[in-house]
Order: sequence, then C-alpha cells, then structure tokens
Amino acid sequence: MAAPREIRTDRYSYVFSPYVAPIATVRPGEVVTIVTEDAFESRIRSAADLPSKVLNFPFLNPQTGPIAIEGARKGDTLVVEILDIELTRDWVVSAHIPHFGGLTGTADTALLNEPLPEKVFVYAVRDGHVELPRGIRVPVAPFVGTIATAPEIEAIAALVPGDFGGNMDVPDTCIGNTVRLPVRVDGALFYTGDVHAAQGDGELCGVACEVTARVTVRFGLEQGRTIKWPRIESATELMTVGSSRPLEDAARIAWVELISWLEADYGFDRWEAYQLLTQAGRMRVGNMVDPKYSMVAKIEKRFLPG
Amino acid sequence: MAAPREIRTDRYSYVFSPYVAPIATVRPGEVVTIVTEDAFESRIRSAADLPSKVLNFPFLNPQTGPIAIEGARKGDTLVVEILDIELTRDWVVSAHIPHFGGLTGTADTALLNEPLPEKVFVYAVRDGHVELPRGIRVPVAPFVGTIATAPEIEAIAALVPGDFGGNMDVPDTCIGNTVRLPVRVDGALFYTGDVHAAQGDGELCGVACEVTARVTVRFGLEQGRTIKWPRIESATELMTVGSSRPLEDAARIAWVELISWLEADYGFDRWEAYQLLTQAGRMRVGNMVDPKYSMVAKIEKRFLPG
Amino acid sequence: MAAPREIRTDRYSYVFSPYVAPIATVRPGEVVTIVTEDAFESRIRSAADLPSKVLNFPFLNPQTGPIAIEGARKGDTLVVEILDIELTRDWVVSAHIPHFGGLTGTADTALLNEPLPEKVFVYAVRDGHVELPRGIRVPVAPFVGTIATAPEIEAIAALVPGDFGGNMDVPDTCIGNTVRLPVRVDGALFYTGDVHAAQGDGELCGVACEVTARVTVRFGLEQGRTIKWPRIESATELMTVGSSRPLEDAARIAWVELISWLEADYGFDRWEAYQLLTQAGRMRVGNMVDPKYSMVAKIEKRFLPG
Amino acid sequence: MAAPREIRTDRYSYVFSPYVAPIATVRPGEVVTIVTEDAFESRIRSAADLPSKVLNFPFLNPQTGPIAIEGARKGDTLVVEILDIELTRDWVVSAHIPHFGGLTGTADTALLNEPLPEKVFVYAVRDGHVELPRGIRVPVAPFVGTIATAPEIEAIAALVPGDFGGNMDVPDTCIGNTVRLPVRVDGALFYTGDVHAAQGDGELCGVACEVTARVTVRFGLEQGRTIKWPRIESATELMTVGSSRPLEDAARIAWVELISWLEADYGFDRWEAYQLLTQAGRMRVGNMVDPKYSMVAKIEKRFLPG
Repeated sequence: MAAPREIRTDRYSYVFSPYVAPIATVRPGEVVTIVTEDAFESRIRSAADLPSKVLNFPFLNPQTGPIAIEGARKGDTLVVEILDIELTRDWVVSAHIPHFGGLTGTADTALLNEPLPEKVFVYAVRDGHVELPRGIRVPVAPFVGTIATAPEIEAIAALVPGDFGGNMDVPDTCIGNTVRLPVRVDGALFYTGDVHAAQGDGELCGVACEVTARVTVRFGLEQGRTIKWPRIESATELMTVGSSRPLEDAARIAWVELISWLEADYGFDRWEAYQLLTQAGRMRVGNMVDPKYSMVAKIEKRFLPG
Repeated sequence: MAAPREIRTDRYSYVFSPYVAPIATVRPGEVVTIVTEDAFESRIRSAADLPSKVLNFPFLNPQTGPIAIEGARKGDTLVVEILDIELTRDWVVSAHIPHFGGLTGTADTALLNEPLPEKVFVYAVRDGHVELPRGIRVPVAPFVGTIATAPEIEAIAALVPGDFGGNMDVPDTCIGNTVRLPVRVDGALFYTGDVHAAQGDGELCGVACEVTARVTVRFGLEQGRTIKWPRIESATELMTVGSSRPLEDAARIAWVELISWLEADYGFDRWEAYQLLTQAGRMRVGNMVDPKYSMVAKIEKRFLPG
Repeated sequence: MAAPREIRTDRYSYVFSPYVAPIATVRPGEVVTIVTEDAFESRIRSAADLPSKVLNFPFLNPQTGPIAIEGARKGDTLVVEILDIELTRDWVVSAHIPHFGGLTGTADTALLNEPLPEKVFVYAVRDGHVELPRGIRVPVAPFVGTIATAPEIEAIAALVPGDFGGNMDVPDTCIGNTVRLPVRVDGALFYTGDVHAAQGDGELCGVACEVTARVTVRFGLEQGRTIKWPRIESATELMTVGSSRPLEDAARIAWVELISWLEADYGFDRWEAYQLLTQAGRMRVGNMVDPKYSMVAKIEKRFLPG
Repeated sequence: MAAPREIRTDRYSYVFSPYVAPIATVRPGEVVTIVTEDAFESRIRSAADLPSKVLNFPFLNPQTGPIAIEGARKGDTLVVEILDIELTRDWVVSAHIPHFGGLTGTADTALLNEPLPEKVFVYAVRDGHVELPRGIRVPVAPFVGTIATAPEIEAIAALVPGDFGGNMDVPDTCIGNTVRLPVRVDGALFYTGDVHAAQGDGELCGVACEVTARVTVRFGLEQGRTIKWPRIESATELMTVGSSRPLEDAARIAWVELISWLEADYGFDRWEAYQLLTQAGRMRVGNMVDPKYSMVAKIEKRFLPG
C-alpha cells in the first residue's frame, strides 16, 4: 500500500480561524499524514533556551492547517480517526514558564506573588519511555494536544480550547480513538498540532512532554448530523470534552453533552442517563492550565444497553 | 463649530478582529460621532419578537468599526474621551433569553434545568427615565457596552470582553470619562456599540436597556506607552477593568492592574498600593453574564498623594 | 436616659456555635452596648508584632457572644438595629499575612509561589480619618465585620461567613442600618465583633482597619417569619448578603434572596423583579478574601412601587 | 481469630465535631468493625419515600462516632487501614433531590430555574453488581463516603468535606487502602459512615449507591507527624485529597499537598516533583456536588525513585 499523502507547512497558524486559506484539501475517507511542530516551534532545545527569551508571544503553539474537507458544510460533523502518531525526534521538552501553570498565579488568576523559577527540562525518549532524572521512566503515550475545526466567525489563539476543540490537551485524542468535531464553516478547516509524548492529568505545570510528530488520520464526514462539543470514541468508551472556567463548568458541559449523546443515540431517558453517569461515569482532567480548562466525561460501552 | 464627522456603517462587525477592513480612518485629536445599533440590531421591537425567533446566532451585538487611528502602532495606548452618548429612539428593549443570564444555567454553566421563560420587555424613555411597569422610573445613564481595539491575532465575538476591552458592559464607559485601550495592531482598529440607556450592576438577566445611539468621542494616542488591560479615568476616579471567569479572577486582574498603575504613575510602592486599595478601593461588578465576566477596580483621586 | 446595659466578656468565642453558653440574655426591644475586641485580640500593636509570631491559629477573630434573645425560636428572624459603633482607641491595625488575601496564593487557592512579604501597618485615627502615609486620609466609616446567629448544628470558625451571617466583612452592617438574621436555635445566640474603622470593597489584603469598639444595638424579634440569608435595610436600600465560593455563587445567592424578598413583601412577580434588578440593582463586593466570599445585592427603595 | 470488636451507635452524629462525647475508645493497633447507616438513615426505601418528605434537614448523613483513639494528640497523624467493607443489605438507593447535584442550580449556585424532578431509585445488589434498569450492571466497589477526625474548634455538618476529611466521597477510601488523617484534638475523634456500593467520578447527581454496611479498620497512630490534608495510600499509589470550591482550588490543594509529600518523604526537589506530576500524575474527581468539592491527586509508586 502506498504511504498516505503527507501534509506539511512552513507557515504555521497561531489561531484556529476561518480567515486562513487552506494549506491542503482532502476528501472524506482519505488518509493523510500531517507533520506537526512542537508547541514551541522547536525553539527550546536546551536548558539555556528560556521561554521568556526565545518565545514570541502570541505566536505560540503552531498549528498545521487549515486542511479543508471536501463537501463539509456548517451543521455537519467531522470524523477524525487517529491511526498513528509517530514522534519524529528522540527527545521531548517541558518548561516552567513564569506566570503560567496550575500551581501559580497566572494571567487570569492575577496575583502579586513573584513568579516560579523559570526552568527548561529536556528529556530523552528511549525504549518507549520518557526518561526523567533519577531513573524515573514515564511510558510514551502520544496524543495530539490540539485538534480543531474553525469557529464560524472567531479566530481563537492556538493556546485556547473551546467548543471547536482546540488546545484541549486531553490524552484521549490518541492513537486508536475517533474524534468528532462540529463543522461550523464550509470545508470544516481542520487544524492539529502540539503532540505530547506523555502528560499527566491536568498538565500541571502547563507544559507536557512536547515533541514534533507525524500524525496519520482518516477523515470522515457525517452530513447533517450536528454536535455542539467535541466527542471522542474509543473501542470501549464514549467521551465528551467540555472547556471553560471554572473547572466545574468544563465538567458540567462535558456531562450535559454526554447525557445528550446517550439520549439521542442510545435510547436513554434524561434522568436515567443522569443516574447511570452518577453511578458509573468517569471523568478525566484534561488540562487545568490553559485559558480555558478541559474536562472529559466518559462512560464505558459495556454499561450501554444492548 | 461644525458638527463632528459622523461614522456609520451598514455592514456591522460581529467580531473584534484585526481581519476586517476599516470603515473609516481618524487622526489623533479628532472628534467623531459614531452611529451604533442596539445589541439585537433592532430586531426586537415588541413582545412578539422573541430572541429565539428573530436572532441569528452568532451574528449578535453588531459593532460599528473598525475605525483606524492614524499612526497607532502596537505598544501604544489609544485614548478615547467619551464626549456624548445620544439615544436615537425613545424606547429601549430588554429580554429574558433561554440559557442566558446570571441566575440560570447557561452555555458555560451547563445544567439540566429547563430554561427560564423567554420574555421581551419594551420600555419607553421619557423625561430622562426608563419607564418600567407600576410607575418604576430608572434614570437614564447611558454608556457604551462595548468599546474595543482589535486583538493582535484573534477575532473575538462581539459578546465577549477581554484585555482588548470588548463587551465589558461596565457603566463607567460613559459620558465624561476617558477610556484607554491597548493598541495591538497598526491603526488600533477601534470598535464600539451596544449602548445601554441604563443597567444595574452585573447586568443580571444579561440584557440591559438596549438602545440605538450616536456616540461622540475624541481620539488620542499615547505613543510608546503600553497598558495590558483597559483603563478608565473620570474626574474623580482611576479605574481598571478585568475580564475573566470565575468572577474573582476578573476582580484580581483589575486590582493587579490598578496597583501597577499606582506604582508606575503615582509613586506608590507595591505594598503601599495594596494597602490603600484594601482600605479605600472600590469595585463595581460590570457584568456577570457574558462569556467572561468584567469587574472594575477603582480608587478615588482624592486618596492619591499630592 | 440611662446608658444602655453593657455586655462584655473575657472569654471570647472563636466560633459561631450553638454549643457555647450565653454570656448574657436580652429581651426583644432592649438596647445594649457590646464591647468588642479587634480581629487580632489586640495582639498586634506595632510593626514588630508579626502575625506569624503573635497569632495563635485557629483562635482568631474573637467574638463577643453568644447573647441569647428571650423568646427567639427556630424559624424566627432576629432584628438588629445598629445604633452606634464607637471606636475605643485612636489607632487601627492592618497586616499582610503570608498566604492570606485576595491577590496571593492562599490555603484554598494553594500555589507554589512564595508568600508575599509579611508586614504590619499601624495607623492613627484623627479627626474622623484613618491616616495612611504620605498624607492619605481615609474617612472613618465603622462597621461590624462579624454579626451572626448560631447555626443549628454546626460550630463555624469566626473567620467564616455563611447563611447565619458571620464574618461577612460588608461595610453595610454599619450605624443606622438594620440587620436581619435567621434564628436557627432557641435564643438565637447572637455574636458580633471584628469592627473595621474603614474598609475598601473586597477587603483586598484580607485585613481592614481593625479596631476595638463599643457597638450599641437594639434587638427585635420577628416571630414566625423565616429568612434564609442575612438581610440589611438602610433608610434608602434593601440589601441581601450571600456568602460562598466562587465569587459569582456568593452573588447569585444574594440576588436570588433579594428577588425572593421583592416577591414576598413588595408584590413583585419573579420575572419583574429579575428585570428591575437587571436595570437598577446594585452590588457591593464585601470580601473576596475569607474562606467564603460575601457579596451584597441592593435595590434602592425609590424603585419600589408605592 | 476472634471477630473484631464491633462499634455501633443508636445516636448518630450529624456533625464532625470535637463537642460530642466518644461512643467508644480504641487503642492504636486495634482492629474494629464499625456499623454504619446509609446517608438517609434508611428512611428512603421505595420510590414513594421522596427526600423532600422523609428527610429532616440538617440531620443528614448520620455518622458513627466519634471514636477516640488512645494517646492521640494534636499534631499526630491517625492511620486508618480499611480492611473490609461489608454491605449489610441487598439493595441500594439513589435519588434526584431538588436543588442538589452537579447539573442543577443548588443552594450555593443559586438560580431561578425550576428544580429537576424529584425521583428515588432503588436498585438490587446481586452477584457483586448493582442492577440498574435495562440490564445495566455496575460492579460493586464499596468505599466509605465519609471518614474524618474532628476539627479543632469547629463542628462541621456531615455533608461537608474539608482538611479533616469528612464527606469527601472519593472512591479511593476503599478496601485495601490506608487513609491518613490529621489529629487536631486529643483522642483524634474519628467518624465514618455513608458507604457507597458504587459511584461514578464526581457523584454527579449527588447521591451514589447508598447502603448500610460494616466497616472493618485497623487504627494506627503516627505521633508527632503532622499532615495538613487527608492522604491515601494503596499498594500502587500515593494520593492526597483536597476539598474546596471552585473545583480547581480542590485540585490545587491536592497537588500542592502531594508535592509536599514527595519533598518530605521521597527526596524530591519541589520543581522536580512539579515536573513529575505534570508528566505522570493522575487526578480523580471525587465529588463535584457537596458544599465543598473533593479532588484526588495521585502518583504511582513505580514513578518514585528506588
């Protein structure tokens, strides 16, 4: 079999936007491999590359896209099967960035405290693990931190998640899973990037194991089917992602959307679905560090009636 | 004296955006009168015009703009003296919109409760008062609900406030006050609209006394002076506006910015400024209903050292 | 006229509690003068008295009480007219306490940042003003930071506000105003203390102008009238106080309670009341620093129908 | 071996309180079996037993306790190994209670929406599963919803979690795990109850699979070792629990406490611990429905250096 068509760019987008011309057009059903930069556009390579020196705000988190999907119309749903995520280098980078992260005053949680010390961490990737100091080995479990369609009239910074997807930083947008995104403009205008080799729940300091990659996906289109927020499906789970602040609002969005899904597609009454999720639902903290936080609500398929 | 140049448009903007061509260009020092639509583009005129029927989401809160300011460069501060706000009709409109407002589940605070009843309120304006039922007369105190410069790379929906200003819905952007906004792109790209004839603190149901208007402003430019968030100055007060969620984060932004102002321009030590605001600061809840909430931190000039 | 009976104690309470024996019993209609300590029990008297050295957590914010009200039963409302607040010394104290305040990481907003510098501020009171450095004079406007009845089964630390009142830190519990509190246990068990000579909105650093005082009140009892949250009435305004986190929840409680009041006592329909508060309501940030934040919702009586 | 001593009561406590006399005293090292009521004191047994009719607020969530631990002093840590949780009936109960739960307006998130429909759910327990309608079978995974020591001076309602433990509703307080709680008063004064046969993350509607039980624990005492928040240890994980509002503050507390633990006992530098948790930490939403929300921060022991 021929290798999938490769899509790459040398003019990354720093927004999820309907105002940018497509860098490629694909047909529903097509498999492509998308080349992605890391969140810092590979400007941080050693401990000396301090974010405050080498980054150029707001030109952060470079996205590959937009990719137009033929025939996609407002009100459709874009289906993205993530077939593979291949890391394209053998090291990853993280950093403690002043006034950014989950355990520090930030631009939104504005405080008078001095910032945390700025610090860069470069880790080797070897034998399927990210190698932290002192022999700590974290398994590589890659996922796309950002995956989005264009909003209808807004252009949103690539650091932000929302109902269009975006910088959700949820480890469930990984190999083997299918992501559904609302189509809000003709062509859908798909963006992805920001691959993480590994990440804990919440992405605590705000920077996971950032890495360049090649992301292979199959696009599909559900015409006339409209969803409000991103949905993810694995072999065993249904998942929805909500993004907002405070964290409970992100959670509420995800739960309400999952209940809607159970009502629409699985024959649940609203209150029965609310009960099922109360007793058997699962929730993952995607990120609690971005301008909006992302929460994933989940239900295992084994709990759905035959 | 000749009447100021009038700026009007018939293609309103539904975003605060750097991607829209200016509808006019002004020079620093120039006085202009800007014609503004109401938040519903005058589609709600009677109790029968239910928002869910006549509005076309996301094309809401039409803005007059952008207006380019000659010579404005990224890093400058735009100065907007609000000289006059003239209501151009003798009635205002408010509404209870499903899943919108401060005392109901919303798109962000997503809940399973049924929405509040949808309802339109049309009030006459007479003798300087908005006339509610049962003889309740609320004094007209007009202000621009939205006032913004363009973000650097984002296009933000006209319903949203942020560090660029936007839909702050704070009654202090009123006649006699001077608003300072950060310039993030060449020409600054100024937007305004959404005049409210009156509004309580918090804009509780999400819709104030909405009205069409003519807004007369004098533009100025402070070159090379950079601010991070909108600032307002009255004859008696210094004010800063923060917009975020939850509400305390909006407040924190406003307080930190006001402390920075006192440090930079009034010779305060940081901790002395923190003390002064603790003992004598004032705070207004602008809105607690938009996608981001807005809080105004204030200090009276009489508390500033000679 | 004879001076009112004076109530003082030498064993202060550090909780609002139904488990403490009354220090005095009063009759409805009686006027008493209550002697109150400052929030630090007068342990901080100079810049050398650092809070981290002289305070004994959790024995903070000493309350004078409980004072039993004869005949008060669960379900009644206690009425407290604040007739006078007399400062009993000519200096006040404030402090920046590590990990406490509105612009720093705290016990609840737990962060990794270093705390702000600890610092004590002692200010003279002269000619009706608190004298800050550099000639800044803040008018004395005294109020009781804490005013409470006992919860039914809980004993709550004197630093915390709630539906029983408590450490609300709202400047509207001042001379001339009438405070209504829910009665939850026999005798109501009234507590007060924590007088502030002045305070800005939000009590930003967490410590206002703390002072000892004599508080003269007239107690009344509304038997069989039940309220859920504290209410305050001035000559010109109706006010309700909500206490919770995040700040918008404190606001929501206050607004909903004020709407209930307008429905019950002023003939308003719920949606009409919601509209009135949207267009003419006022809101004060009481504190945004205590374990729960307090917000005051207000409506001027001139907006109530004859 | 003899069966452990059984501790039961017929006067349950509705508070976590230092003001209640012990119902039993145990020695460190002792194993006891504690008989617990369900959260509704078994008043809800069928669909007809609506919470609004049969419950008697605030006398909810009956606790077995306090149990005094010999020799425990303020500043010690109480160690509770959960050896067994035996359900003592073959049915469980859940309910949708008006103005309570994660997807509705509540007492704190006070809104004008009508409450959700009140509804009781009684489920059979069979073959290790809770049997929901339509053949949905949720595995029994019992845990104690509440586990606490007494606060130092407060008495806190049994519905509330805090730094003393309490109504955390985290599924990790289960068989095989060891819970550590701060000792704040002589004798520690231990409480437990509120067993859940199963619960999803967040306890979405506010009521899990509530059941009566017998809870067998071994008490231990770490003298002179002080912790600030509850800690849980399993065979494979270290866990900390934070409880606050909004949800991110509960998370922050848990993360900061886990970092402190890694620093104190595992030789980590603060920033190295922050990094490890960023890349490999896990987080569970305990409850997002109680008066304070509870979040569990976790790190697998395999990621700790030898």
